[in-house]
Amino acid sequence: MTMISKNQLKLLRALSQKKQRKAHGLFLVEGEKNVLELLETSMVTKHVFATSEFLASHREQLQRVECIEASLEELTKASSLVSNNAAVAVVEIPRTDIPVAEGMMIALDGVSDPGNLGTIIRIADWYGIKHIVASTDCADPYNPKTIRATMGSFSRVQVTLLDLPSYLAQASLPVYGAFLEGENVHKLAFSAEGILLMGSESHGVRPEAAQYVTDKITIPAFGGAESLNVAMATGIILDNFRRQHSDA
Amino acid sequence: MTMISKNQLKLLRALSQKKQRKAHGLFLVEGEKNVLELLETSMVTKHVFATSEFLASHREQLQRVECIEASLEELTKASSLVSNNAAVAVVEIPRTDIPVAEGMMIALDGVSDPGNLGTIIRIADWYGIKHIVASTDCADPYNPKTIRATMGSFSRVQVTLLDLPSYLAQASLPVYGAFLEGENVHKLAFSAEGILLMGSESHGVRPEAAQYVTDKITIPAFGGAESLNVAMATGIILDNFRRQHSDA
Repeated sequence: MTMISKNQLKLLRALSQKKQRKAHGLFLVEGEKNVLELLETSMVTKHVFATSEFLASHREQLQRVECIEASLEELTKASSLVSNNAAVAVVEIPRTDIPVAEGMMIALDGVSDPGNLGTIIRIADWYGIKHIVASTDCADPYNPKTIRATMGSFSRVQVTLLDLPSYLAQASLPVYGAFLEGENVHKLAFSAEGILLMGSESHGVRPEAAQYVTDKITIPAFGGAESLNVAMATGIILDNFRRQHSDA
Repeated sequence: MTMISKNQLKLLRALSQKKQRKAHGLFLVEGEKNVLELLETSMVTKHVFATSEFLASHREQLQRVECIEASLEELTKASSLVSNNAAVAVVEIPRTDIPVAEGMMIALDGVSDPGNLGTIIRIADWYGIKHIVASTDCADPYNPKTIRATMGSFSRVQVTLLDLPSYLAQASLPVYGAFLEGENVHKLAFSAEGILLMGSESHGVRPEAAQYVTDKITIPAFGGAESLNVAMATGIILDNFRRQHSDA
């Protein structure tokens, strides 16, 4: 049994910043559920900082990981989570390749809020989508707020930041772009493969990406609200896609 | 032109607490979009605290309201919003009656997060739902975080906290309860009228309310995620309902 050292605490705090994550090649996975999901994956976990209760309850899963015991108070102070936190893991950022454009994918243009990105990763996982490509000004998929909002789904959905217009240009798939004026998703016949392109709530899909849209689509409105949250809209469109293609 | 007085600042701060909102019969509407939506309603606005730019740009809508000019810095300090805030309104909590059970409604059981409640109000408004009934341990619809998340929809959707089991007992409508094991919403034939009953993410629908469910429903999953956020699930189910009943 060891305690969190000053240097470890410094590292934990540093990893809340994107620059530091990049420099170290590491990111944080916080919270009981997320850490347990992490241990089921092939990701390389450097350390797990956790309460004695957490360590005792999950001894088997933690066998091959270096564990550091800490009090709930220490962990909460060290983490970016507001509420109590039983476990924090330090994990290597995996090296990933740019995904081949196939199957159903999501493309995000300028979605800068980490909570929204995390919620989109979670709903993508619900609907069995494996790949999200995102413009380089989207939120960092390794931001602790993103990871937290995924509720464990971060390990099953790969997010790749890249030059989005170039990616869309080379993809030979239909590109479904969400716009306020588009074809009603309740009426649309979706292809079995395609890219669902979502823009930010404030700016929508920007022209550089919008030029590759083959089908403008929209979620019909029935009341007074003028817009939908981008994660909510993504979930509703994926549900409409899956009703037609349950095995794509 | 006046400035925020010490007593006004004290009131603004106090209204972030439920007890104080109840004692004063007042709540806060924060942020440019929400305040502008407010001015279109019949709600009684006591004061609007806003920047000189906001006051100048919306002179006509603000004619019948007492306005107090303040700097962006003062407003941000006075409000519960993290980011800059151009306007804060102090508004009378409207007196409302318990809604008659008719049309499509939403019932919430133990949904205690104000952000989730606000997002549900917003998506209810998108799909033209006018009434939400909620168990008394749900988040306060007049919590500033709830109001903020509604993005203006708070003025078009009435939320009534009440004894939920009693309400469901007297309602002569089908009650659609969201459960992990239920009929697939892609296959279900919805009635034109009904109550959509949603539980909290952690506890689901509790037995006291669940006993009145006439139809257990579920959103089919295709990937690895174990659960959906309650607001996301509400939106997806409402979309499935509206595809069948676009004018209910």
